[in-house]
Amino acid sequence: MKDLHEMLLKVRQGEISLAEAESYLRRKPFEDMGYAKVDTHRRVRSGFPEVIFAQGKADEHLLAIFQRIFEDEGEVMATRASEQQYELIAARLPEARYDKLSRIITCVRSARQKQGCIAVCTAGTADIPVAEEAAQVAEYFGNYVERIYDVGVSGIHRLLSRLDIIQKANCVIAVAGMEGALGSVIAGLVDKPVIAVPTSIGYGANFHGVSALLTMINSCANGIATVNIDNGYGAGYIAAQINRLAAAEA
Amino acid sequence: MKDLHEMLLKVRQGEISLAEAESYLRRKPFEDMGYAKVDTHRRVRSGFPEVIFAQGKADEHLLAIFQRIFEDEGEVMATRASEQQYELIAARLPEARYDKLSRIITCVRSARQKQGCIAVCTAGTADIPVAEEAAQVAEYFGNYVERIYDVGVSGIHRLLSRLDIIQKANCVIAVAGMEGALGSVIAGLVDKPVIAVPTSIGYGANFHGVSALLTMINSCANGIATVNIDNGYGAGYIAAQINRLAAAEA
Amino acid sequence: MKDLHEMLLKVRQGEISLAEAESYLRRKPFEDMGYAKVDTHRRVRSGFPEVIFAQGKADEHLLAIFQRIFEDEGEVMATRASEQQYELIAARLPEARYDKLSRIITCVRSARQKQGCIAVCTAGTADIPVAEEAAQVAEYFGNYVERIYDVGVSGIHRLLSRLDIIQKANCVIAVAGMEGALGSVIAGLVDKPVIAVPTSIGYGANFHGVSALLTMINSCANGIATVNIDNGYGAGYIAAQINRLAAAEA
Amino acid sequence: MKDLHEMLLKVRQGEISLAEAESYLRRKPFEDMGYAKVDTHRRVRSGFPEVIFAQGKADEHLLAIFQRIFEDEGEVMATRASEQQYELIAARLPEARYDKLSRIITCVRSARQKQGCIAVCTAGTADIPVAEEAAQVAEYFGNYVERIYDVGVSGIHRLLSRLDIIQKANCVIAVAGMEGALGSVIAGLVDKPVIAVPTSIGYGANFHGVSALLTMINSCANGIATVNIDNGYGAGYIAAQINRLAAAEA
Amino acid sequence: MKDLHEMLLKVRQGEISLAEAESYLRRKPFEDMGYAKVDTHRRVRSGFPEVIFAQGKADEHLLAIFQRIFEDEGEVMATRASEQQYELIAARLPEARYDKLSRIITCVRSARQKQGCIAVCTAGTADIPVAEEAAQVAEYFGNYVERIYDVGVSGIHRLLSRLDIIQKANCVIAVAGMEGALGSVIAGLVDKPVIAVPTSIGYGANFHGVSALLTMINSCANGIATVNIDNGYGAGYIAAQINRLAAAEA
Amino acid sequence: MKDLHEMLLKVRQGEISLAEAESYLRRKPFEDMGYAKVDTHRRVRSGFPEVIFAQGKADEHLLAIFQRIFEDEGEVMATRASEQQYELIAARLPEARYDKLSRIITCVRSARQKQGCIAVCTAGTADIPVAEEAAQVAEYFGNYVERIYDVGVSGIHRLLSRLDIIQKANCVIAVAGMEGALGSVIAGLVDKPVIAVPTSIGYGANFHGVSALLTMINSCANGIATVNIDNGYGAGYIAAQINRLAAAEA
Amino acid sequence: MKDLHEMLLKVRQGEISLAEAESYLRRKPFEDMGYAKVDTHRRVRSGFPEVIFAQGKADEHLLAIFQRIFEDEGEVMATRASEQQYELIAARLPEARYDKLSRIITCVRSARQKQGCIAVCTAGTADIPVAEEAAQVAEYFGNYVERIYDVGVSGIHRLLSRLDIIQKANCVIAVAGMEGALGSVIAGLVDKPVIAVPTSIGYGANFHGVSALLTMINSCANGIATVNIDNGYGAGYIAAQINRLAAAEA
Amino acid sequence: MKDLHEMLLKVRQGEISLAEAESYLRRKPFEDMGYAKVDTHRRVRSGFPEVIFAQGKADEHLLAIFQRIFEDEGEVMATRASEQQYELIAARLPEARYDKLSRIITCVRSARQKQGCIAVCTAGTADIPVAEEAAQVAEYFGNYVERIYDVGVSGIHRLLSRLDIIQKANCVIAVAGMEGALGSVIAGLVDKPVIAVPTSIGYGANFHGVSALLTMINSCANGIATVNIDNGYGAGYIAAQINRLAAAEA
Repeated sequence: MKDLHEMLLKVRQGEISLAEAESYLRRKPFEDMGYAKVDTHRRVRSGFPEVIFAQGKADEHLLAIFQRIFEDEGEVMATRASEQQYELIAARLPEARYDKLSRIITCVRSARQKQGCIAVCTAGTADIPVAEEAAQVAEYFGNYVERIYDVGVSGIHRLLSRLDIIQKANCVIAVAGMEGALGSVIAGLVDKPVIAVPTSIGYGANFHGVSALLTMINSCANGIATVNIDNGYGAGYIAAQINRLAAAEA
Repeated sequence: MKDLHEMLLKVRQGEISLAEAESYLRRKPFEDMGYAKVDTHRRVRSGFPEVIFAQGKADEHLLAIFQRIFEDEGEVMATRASEQQYELIAARLPEARYDKLSRIITCVRSARQKQGCIAVCTAGTADIPVAEEAAQVAEYFGNYVERIYDVGVSGIHRLLSRLDIIQKANCVIAVAGMEGALGSVIAGLVDKPVIAVPTSIGYGANFHGVSALLTMINSCANGIATVNIDNGYGAGYIAAQINRLAAAEA
Repeated sequence: MKDLHEMLLKVRQGEISLAEAESYLRRKPFEDMGYAKVDTHRRVRSGFPEVIFAQGKADEHLLAIFQRIFEDEGEVMATRASEQQYELIAARLPEARYDKLSRIITCVRSARQKQGCIAVCTAGTADIPVAEEAAQVAEYFGNYVERIYDVGVSGIHRLLSRLDIIQKANCVIAVAGMEGALGSVIAGLVDKPVIAVPTSIGYGANFHGVSALLTMINSCANGIATVNIDNGYGAGYIAAQINRLAAAEA
Repeated sequence: MKDLHEMLLKVRQGEISLAEAESYLRRKPFEDMGYAKVDTHRRVRSGFPEVIFAQGKADEHLLAIFQRIFEDEGEVMATRASEQQYELIAARLPEARYDKLSRIITCVRSARQKQGCIAVCTAGTADIPVAEEAAQVAEYFGNYVERIYDVGVSGIHRLLSRLDIIQKANCVIAVAGMEGALGSVIAGLVDKPVIAVPTSIGYGANFHGVSALLTMINSCANGIATVNIDNGYGAGYIAAQINRLAAAEA
Repeated sequence: MKDLHEMLLKVRQGEISLAEAESYLRRKPFEDMGYAKVDTHRRVRSGFPEVIFAQGKADEHLLAIFQRIFEDEGEVMATRASEQQYELIAARLPEARYDKLSRIITCVRSARQKQGCIAVCTAGTADIPVAEEAAQVAEYFGNYVERIYDVGVSGIHRLLSRLDIIQKANCVIAVAGMEGALGSVIAGLVDKPVIAVPTSIGYGANFHGVSALLTMINSCANGIATVNIDNGYGAGYIAAQINRLAAAEA
Repeated sequence: MKDLHEMLLKVRQGEISLAEAESYLRRKPFEDMGYAKVDTHRRVRSGFPEVIFAQGKADEHLLAIFQRIFEDEGEVMATRASEQQYELIAARLPEARYDKLSRIITCVRSARQKQGCIAVCTAGTADIPVAEEAAQVAEYFGNYVERIYDVGVSGIHRLLSRLDIIQKANCVIAVAGMEGALGSVIAGLVDKPVIAVPTSIGYGANFHGVSALLTMINSCANGIATVNIDNGYGAGYIAAQINRLAAAEA
Repeated sequence: MKDLHEMLLKVRQGEISLAEAESYLRRKPFEDMGYAKVDTHRRVRSGFPEVIFAQGKADEHLLAIFQRIFEDEGEVMATRASEQQYELIAARLPEARYDKLSRIITCVRSARQKQGCIAVCTAGTADIPVAEEAAQVAEYFGNYVERIYDVGVSGIHRLLSRLDIIQKANCVIAVAGMEGALGSVIAGLVDKPVIAVPTSIGYGANFHGVSALLTMINSCANGIATVNIDNGYGAGYIAAQINRLAAAEA
Repeated sequence: MKDLHEMLLKVRQGEISLAEAESYLRRKPFEDMGYAKVDTHRRVRSGFPEVIFAQGKADEHLLAIFQRIFEDEGEVMATRASEQQYELIAARLPEARYDKLSRIITCVRSARQKQGCIAVCTAGTADIPVAEEAAQVAEYFGNYVERIYDVGVSGIHRLLSRLDIIQKANCVIAVAGMEGALGSVIAGLVDKPVIAVPTSIGYGANFHGVSALLTMINSCANGIATVNIDNGYGAGYIAAQINRLAAAEA
């Protein structure tokens, strides 16, 4: 919006036509593909490339969007992708790679340099897929990531033995299911923001992750905020924003 | 029921009348006060004297039951009692004592000797009233109690500094509101049963203690079981049963 | 931590190097297998061998952990195991045994001697799988178990007819779905701790066991605590701790 | 509607005017008092007089409706009435009576003869107000009522000692809060319909009676149906219908 | 228990041995099949034969229990049975019959005579399977049943056109999913007990029948009580008890 | 936005300055009072004057906003107002009027002419305050309103007797608490949009209106949409929009 | 009912027989097909033809109802239809058409003329199937529909760029899952009724659409009402009623 | 822990005694006041002074802790404080200040210099108290804060007009009740982390803020995380951590 004055000046001076000005004021900063509006300005606006949520997308739509972004940007990532979706894409783009654990497809011309540090911790081994989604999204956005897995609170010595690594990060992602207490314990031990990710791991009265979500939202610790159940992507995204703030001026 | 054979033998031998036998077989092991059935056999059956839940009782009922048990047993306790209820009782039984924090009235001729050890831990200072209900019930039943308060998981070093005392107990009561993670952490550090008590302390999405209850029920640790929200009495009772089992033969 | 003094003394006397002391103070009492941290100190700490939660584990991880513990300990148990997981293990360890009902795999060189007594009761026949998980875990840990099945409260005479056996146990596990009232009734009839296990048996407004869980948490009886829905393992574990306390000195 | 033919015949024969016929077909079987539509046909339709739900009614409305029904019917009952509401009515109708426990106001010229038998049971003493609402409504409708109070399942012998009385009733009302297991146990012991009334008595995870409601709805017993939390009136009403069916032909 | 006096008299007179008396006092009014306790006294106690809940039963258990009851009683019914379970039984008992809609297997030597009247109404066609479970259970117990299907409240004229039939029944079963309003409307139109059955029919915020359950529990009408979601059996059972009370003396 | 072209033309022609154009493009169509942004364009945009939600507003804020709108518009309405708030306003604007039932304050120079027809129905008398909020808001916006109160589904004849009036309206507002079935029945009887308003009237498992809300959202009828619990204002607003559409061209 | 007077007049004048009159007064405005009551008067009463909810219907019932309505009306629509159900119908009615996205089968002799305008907006591409159900139902009923898809609030410029089209509609349908904020934003931008449709799109704490439903019900905007989760049909229906009101007189 | 090596070296060299070393290794980094453990190392560990949660604290405890921290730190803040609590403190510390809106008491010798920028936005005026808690906590910790209030999504132009200010902040706090959509819209417009705070503002189905919480947790936007309902303090804390990261190196 900052060039509003400039544009109006040009209108006055006749440098651009009325039609151009109207078009400028009404322009849609996205490309309409009919079934979807691909946000081609996102990288400019947010500094991060767009990431595709693959789950539930029709095959032809996924393929078209994936290719389109890769052509435009030279890099593309799809989360929540099935193996079958990967094969579909790999048939066209053989350089695409698939990580089964995190269910992420990537296709990258040249990897970004990693900066700063984000620590990704899990309570148990079953939480690793969600943690990997967070870690790989953060890495894709150019952040350095430390993984500290299986350090749940029922054996607190495992967490304490890795504390020095965790304390060095600019932002900590705490991934936990069942009772979800990991976030509170870590937030009490570090002085950086903790992003808590509840997972749907557990059974019985865990209600597919609601128990862990409530634990994290009700945390008695300072410096903790929460994203949706199993939302590794969301945690990786906001952690990347925070780490970028810290690293930008360094 | 073990003397059934004996009793029938006496019937056969004419040592007891038919009426006596029928009465024996039909006898009600409680006293009917009309509005309530006071369980005069409880001490025999359970080894613990009956405790009165004062909240919501009509004044005349509370007073009558309280006096009756004191006369029969020489000791009596009422939980969830208001100050006004205490004054009502104290007018008749000046030796009655009231603890404002735990809201417990007691009247005891001679205190029992304490045996074994139960550790009562709280996450914060606001959980102390519930913890005191548990601790004082356990003490009333003749158990030695260690209090370790304000050792919540957001500052884990406070808990670790007291670990040696906690590990010596036969049973640990973990009292916590907000996210309720204390029980999991303690259960991972001791090899004795942990009774978790969620409290209604907190706000927002804690739902008056449901968040802490879910955390405790979903605990990833071994050796933990849970009682109702704010149910200090229930925790003290089962902990007393466990400590008695451990101490009985020592 | 009790040898802290001793270790520092050796440092002073030059008997151990600084590096050794540091390593000692920082040592991790678990073995890091990369994807998991096997708790090799658990038997020492808790007196019970580690039990594997098989559900959701990757085949190669399950197999490696199972073998590793068996080699170290001469005994191993996996709960929530599928028949396919059993076959995987049996191909390597032909002496492994599988119980379809409780879905438990065991591999034991020499069974422990059983001590004390735990009673495991169910309301209906559909609750038996959860009860068997509890019973077999308790037996694996060296406890004597009495099974009293199908004694739900809608036919109270069935329960009363077995009361003498239940009253002899040091701890009672009450397993029930639907309305889950069994725990309250038993706790009113015995003077030992009752561990209540809600099951997901039922339909409609039972919400996969939440109804039974609420019933048990709200029990009007004394001496009852609750574990998660279908958590037979957790009930068996804490019952084993309680029975051990009772039996230890006998 | 059975006299439809007759009425049409009269129209044909000119015995009644068109206007009368239209009015007949459109007539409203209630009296419109502006702010309320008093159902003057209810006694005819249902056999029971209308009962006023006093709670929340404006003073002038309550008074007018109360007086109106008393004039028409010679008997009237208001439930959920406050003491202040009673005083308002007593100022006009000194013969009105108020029962503090059940919060019911009645004004009856000549009491009905009681027939049949309804048993009203409670788990604890705190459930008595709801039970009394049920009992007094049933008595007002002309049913004989047996009260069996404080027979909760945590002391099952209290219930068993009164079983013969309960088994004689045509319908049993089981009133219970906390875990609400009373209904299941009674339904397993009698062969008549059991109407279960959950009460809001309890605390913590009882959710103001929802726990007891779920217990009753999920009952594993046969011959049990449930009304709303604290709805003594509703239980008394349907029990009266059932007892009437049983007693009608005797 | 009424022959207690008589039995004791015989003991006194030496007419029965001590062993016989003990056995009498301890006798279990059910047969223990190991995995289940078949209630062989139920018909005597309740007047209705036992009905098997087939769902989730192991094949060999179902078959054994089904055959055993048929041999003892000459009639047997299993609800919630799959077609595969029927084929299992039909291989042994070719006279067994299966109703796909209600998923009921029956095997009856000679049908009972039907008495009285129960009306079974549904809101939509999708509610019919639950209604048929209720209707066929009631018929099996010897009750005459009227079926009035697809009379939901969004087209109230359909219900009004069948009102005369509904009003003749001794008890009405109202089966409805979605918003579940049928029960309230019917209870306002008849003077007999209405048993409301919520069904899990619907989608979105119906929560598998909870919406209909809440509607029925909160009904503003008189003379209505509710059973669990989809619990046609439970509704048929209590309706049969009520109709029997009405018909017994006629 | 339609005069964008025109404005740009003037810029080109130098008829308005750059500053004016920028101001135009950036202008805030509301007035910033610091603590609130009064929407002075609302009447232009929506055709309805702004209505103040009084509840929770600070006294000085309420008074200032109320006066400001009255000065600008010559009419003003505040909903959810307490008597004390009314007195505050009446001290300054003696012509303000307060309706206790609906808790609405109005101050109107000249009432609008009423057009079209909206029918407002309630299930019981306790639902009237919410209904009046809807009705008076609709009247304030210039709509003719028919009130049909106390026509709940447990006495369906009361509703049927008023059907002709209801069927004439362009839009029907159905206000009901408890089980909330009124909306479904009306929507089955009219061919115009029904706006359903659940109320918090009821007790027990009504959850302060959630039961009625779920009933309405799950309605099996066509042509029904729902607003928030007790949201009479919201129902009146959308009904006014609908009636305006119908009446506009008439 | 308006011809009641007329009919009674004819009875008086002997123009129609008593039997005819009775039949008229008792006639059922629907056709009883045994398993269903097809509402043959619906088109007359509501102005819209009946639409079949195909999901869960037995094959023979679906086919019979579909054919019957097509014969009577010359047009028919079935929603929530599977491809297999379409093939079943197409075998008999080759002119039937199936839309995979919305899962709608139609068979129409001559399409209606479209009038007025309804705008259907979605937040994301995954919400399109529900939106199409709404759009096609509205078109089937003769309304002109504008589709504006993928304009969710996380990229508000996409919505603003299409605002002029949305503002021209008589009614806007806002379809959104996840956090469901689209309805509020649109209602703040238009002066026509907004019908909000929550969808089950999302994961974690969205609870299959409950999160979006709550967002919409709690909307801070004016002029918005909500239908059930994924209920495109319901939104299309009421929007058609509203658009018809607006267009009728134009 | 970094001086571990150094300390051990001193032990070796005899520079510190064994007792000192043991004490060092076991030292408790907090001061035990009996009823509370004041965390005197917090400022060192976290860089922020401790803030007191006043609500529910006993008067003498609050006063003692408040004074103690002020003496140690020269600054102190208490949140959720009542006016009565302020008066208590002001009697001792006349320089203490109270902000009624945010319910915060502060006592500060010399205010910190403000750095960076945090934007605090609210949807409505009723959300301001929570926003002020966040803003003042952030300011107390030395952050520059921009307040942008009353910019809810139902009038999106209000938000857009302030966008330039919001976009300049390092972190945005979005405070909203009712449907809580503000966070999603802002996160779509900025490229910095958004901390969403649901408030309990609203009524009906907002469930005291749960609706807004779910909206925020389910947000379709990138770069958003959520804290507990009404938890302004928690949002201010984590925003301060983020802003510090951004500002530290600038």
